[in-house]
Amino acid sequence: MAKFIRVDMGSKSVKTEECPEQYAGLAGRGLTSIFVANEVKPTCHPLGKNNKLIFAPGFLTGTSAANSGRISCGAKSPLTGTIKESNAGGTFSQRMAKMDIKAIVFEGLPAEDKFYVVKVAMDSVTIEDAPAEILGKGNYEAVKFLQAKYGPKVGVALAGPAGEMRLSSANISFADPDGNLRSAGRGGLGAVMGSKKIKAVVIDDTGAPGVTIANPDAFKSAAKRFANALTTHPVTGQGLPKYGTNILVNILNEAGGLPTENFRRGRNEWANNIGGETMEATISARGGKTTHGCHKGCIIRCSQHYVDEKGEYITSGFEYETIWALGADAAIDNLDGIALIDREYDEVGVDSIETSVALAVAMDAGVIPWGDAKASLDLVKQIRQGTPLGRILGCGAAAVGQMYGITRVPVVKNQAIPAYDPRAVKGVGLTYATTPMGADHTAGYAVAANILKVGGYVDPLGKEGQVELSRNLQIATAAVDSTGMCLFIAFAILDIADGFNALVDMINARYNLSLTGDDVTALGKTILKAERDFNRRAGFTNAHDRLPEFFEEPCPPHNVVWDFTDEEIDEVFNF
Amino acid sequence: MAKFIRVDMGSKSVKTEECPEQYAGLAGRGLTSIFVANEVKPTCHPLGKNNKLIFAPGFLTGTSAANSGRISCGAKSPLTGTIKESNAGGTFSQRMAKMDIKAIVFEGLPAEDKFYVVKVAMDSVTIEDAPAEILGKGNYEAVKFLQAKYGPKVGVALAGPAGEMRLSSANISFADPDGNLRSAGRGGLGAVMGSKKIKAVVIDDTGAPGVTIANPDAFKSAAKRFANALTTHPVTGQGLPKYGTNILVNILNEAGGLPTENFRRGRNEWANNIGGETMEATISARGGKTTHGCHKGCIIRCSQHYVDEKGEYITSGFEYETIWALGADAAIDNLDGIALIDREYDEVGVDSIETSVALAVAMDAGVIPWGDAKASLDLVKQIRQGTPLGRILGCGAAAVGQMYGITRVPVVKNQAIPAYDPRAVKGVGLTYATTPMGADHTAGYAVAANILKVGGYVDPLGKEGQVELSRNLQIATAAVDSTGMCLFIAFAILDIADGFNALVDMINARYNLSLTGDDVTALGKTILKAERDFNRRAGFTNAHDRLPEFFEEPCPPHNVVWDFTDEEIDEVFNF
Repeated sequence: MAKFIRVDMGSKSVKTEECPEQYAGLAGRGLTSIFVANEVKPTCHPLGKNNKLIFAPGFLTGTSAANSGRISCGAKSPLTGTIKESNAGGTFSQRMAKMDIKAIVFEGLPAEDKFYVVKVAMDSVTIEDAPAEILGKGNYEAVKFLQAKYGPKVGVALAGPAGEMRLSSANISFADPDGNLRSAGRGGLGAVMGSKKIKAVVIDDTGAPGVTIANPDAFKSAAKRFANALTTHPVTGQGLPKYGTNILVNILNEAGGLPTENFRRGRNEWANNIGGETMEATISARGGKTTHGCHKGCIIRCSQHYVDEKGEYITSGFEYETIWALGADAAIDNLDGIALIDREYDEVGVDSIETSVALAVAMDAGVIPWGDAKASLDLVKQIRQGTPLGRILGCGAAAVGQMYGITRVPVVKNQAIPAYDPRAVKGVGLTYATTPMGADHTAGYAVAANILKVGGYVDPLGKEGQVELSRNLQIATAAVDSTGMCLFIAFAILDIADGFNALVDMINARYNLSLTGDDVTALGKTILKAERDFNRRAGFTNAHDRLPEFFEEPCPPHNVVWDFTDEEIDEVFNF
Repeated sequence: MAKFIRVDMGSKSVKTEECPEQYAGLAGRGLTSIFVANEVKPTCHPLGKNNKLIFAPGFLTGTSAANSGRISCGAKSPLTGTIKESNAGGTFSQRMAKMDIKAIVFEGLPAEDKFYVVKVAMDSVTIEDAPAEILGKGNYEAVKFLQAKYGPKVGVALAGPAGEMRLSSANISFADPDGNLRSAGRGGLGAVMGSKKIKAVVIDDTGAPGVTIANPDAFKSAAKRFANALTTHPVTGQGLPKYGTNILVNILNEAGGLPTENFRRGRNEWANNIGGETMEATISARGGKTTHGCHKGCIIRCSQHYVDEKGEYITSGFEYETIWALGADAAIDNLDGIALIDREYDEVGVDSIETSVALAVAMDAGVIPWGDAKASLDLVKQIRQGTPLGRILGCGAAAVGQMYGITRVPVVKNQAIPAYDPRAVKGVGLTYATTPMGADHTAGYAVAANILKVGGYVDPLGKEGQVELSRNLQIATAAVDSTGMCLFIAFAILDIADGFNALVDMINARYNLSLTGDDVTALGKTILKAERDFNRRAGFTNAHDRLPEFFEEPCPPHNVVWDFTDEEIDEVFNF
């Protein structure tokens, strides 16, 4: 029976129990969200003793299923005040699954002002003093130190310096197979970890039994069909592996949906300088890696190692959204400048979307000049220094907007709107407005049908069909986020029916179930309803499902506005 | 017919109309709140074009009724996101009333980045460029400049440097009869004024017709009875005139309800150093004024001129809540240090409660040492300098708490809890939790019955009777805030029935009405319901009517906790 581990940081005690009945049929986001909805007081302070942080692998994590190694982290968010699930790659999740650990829950707050490392092994969970050598240090150095101390293969979850400072945009960083970093980026869950004084969680799967597959032959066959869908689909088989997610820069710029200079327009003249094609050519010329997986078993391999002119590693997991935010929204027109800032985000441990959008708001407020890569990097370095300005930036775009008294602040539920202008890609605008997570493209990626013509086509500039699109994608995503799968598999399963069937077949073969597609939909709905109910009890209403007023302004080049009525928006969650 | 003036800062146009029918029977808070509830989009950005700022005198303002010169300011608050009414003394309101101006409304936002002065005279309302000499300058200097330019007797409303910067705690400052400052302090309405680029509103009542009284004899007789109640009651007749509001320091300390060191306990050892008795003796010995009115016709005269050792004026309107916040909550144990900080608050134009509580939170976070008057003053001066730390402070206690990642932040709906510990004065705790304004003692001053035994007695440490007490006081206060009366008249009218009757009689005589006490209650209910409905449409629910978690900790010396259930709290607004 799978283990459910509760670590009480108040009493420094650990309870390892059998997974409670009510959570047995859940995993990933489904488990984290329903757990938080059940066990966390909705009106609690996110950094207080009543919040709980939960890590959970997905249904298929630890198996040979392609791309199934994501970890879901859940808690009440200090950035949004809503329920939050944020997931990441790395090696942590697969180790948990192989150790038959359903979830690790962190509860309570230590009375004393010192940090700890929680070490999870097959036969013990221990709470140790955090080594002084890693406190306040960059995450790369901290991973290196911890893997030197605890063994080169241990999984590591880290609260970076920003998490130690409990800043609202602090992420949780996970070591990837190379000891580089993958982030559960959004919503400030690193601050929750920091509030509980957990500097790191180290997981050692020595002696792990591995995952049991109920019907190995059926699983193997389904896994093959699933992998085939991924390698066949042009997005997951060709675009992402070659150019990474950054292939989207030129596509969105072309579509007029690439928010530029704090969402003033949807197209700019320098997009190609920062796009995936330029990035791939640059990395190739310099001898970096153009393709790389964030976890074992990834066959999309959209990551890369971005290197400097001397071929030295700067950053990996160099995503479209980060590059958009710095390169278009903050108008920094070169990849080298952007890469150094991305590296510093990973070092200090902050959400790269939130912080970059915050930089653009700071530019709009006149704090630093537009497009100034050096000033931006210096400002991001101030986060680690704990200066007042660094703290403001580390608390996100809304904090910068408030402190500098400006209203052009692209956030929903206090979380920064990412890389697709909601006026020009209206389906994802509805997702931003309505997802229980605060503005988040991954919660219902309508960009697929609006721009990429994946999973059908819905005119991005029109309102027709967008409500259903966002709703259905949000439901499907909540389910996919429960599998441990990378969300990018959605491109393939939206277009290739057998890919979706294979995914369901794998789950059935793993657990000896007979789920259908309808069950998957039902699961997605259950998760969303639990999340929304938590938010309602935390004080959220439909009035929070709104975009900022400035989206009434026309967005060039199409000069489209955000024109959904409140009633139309509220239809998204009418299911 | 009374004038209703609308100043559109977007088009720089002014419309003077007859008071619309729906607002004709309203004044003061009743007018500002029902106007905001009717005309402001609840989900608008408080600093955006859709917010409106309204100034309104009360029913009795401009008459000879004692203490009737308050001005109500209303808008959606940038601090709380709720509806907001904040009122102040000074000369502005009486001039408006004598000019037969029911309300001045400021709408829209200028496109250009420059500040304006709005000048209101009998025959014209003009929008002029703000003189460079007053931009960024302290409020005392600005008033002096404007009264030199526009005439020594003009009324002045100012957005101080904090308002220019649109900081969330910026107040609106009004010149008093001596050219000193009175503040509509709470909720950041100065930032709304600053967002509309209004540096000052100057009102010149030359040629004003004055207030018409329908039944002068009846009015005169009622006014006399009313004044008699004020001079007879020990609080308004003796305590407040002699010691000011600061008489409360020793009383609350004795009661164990004087929040000390960021609400860690309700009593301290140095209270007498900062109390009203010490203040009165100090001012007397130095040749200052121990008693002084904030507006013409005040017969309570709880203000004073606090002077330094050389007898030089430092500050006036030196209130208990400010002295508590700096002197107990932030542990600055001497009045001279506190007075200099209060002066700087008035100069920069921030709410003295919010900013002082924010200083205590900053002390708790280790930003400056506890009780350090000089470090506090330096930090407050940073607001005017616009440093990042100054901006954080100027955005209030919750902002400091967020940026420094601490949870001991005494706010409700993002507004700082004032000078009475809700655990030891439970009635006012219910007011903090439930008033539509965010934590505000003036919204339903249960301290009267809990501590001062005015208007009956309800045990401050028990729950019995507190729900009804807070509810009834909130209803009565909403009505009193509509009269233009200083809230302190409530002490007298709660205990002296003829004082209350005289107040109603004055309104009837002024307008030729026949209102009863029940009508006053009905008005109070109507106002509260409109305010609460605005908040509901802005996204507030009962979940926001909660105190921070840390009030579960026992408060010495009585070691009482905040122990109302959610259901009990929610009963306050069940009417």
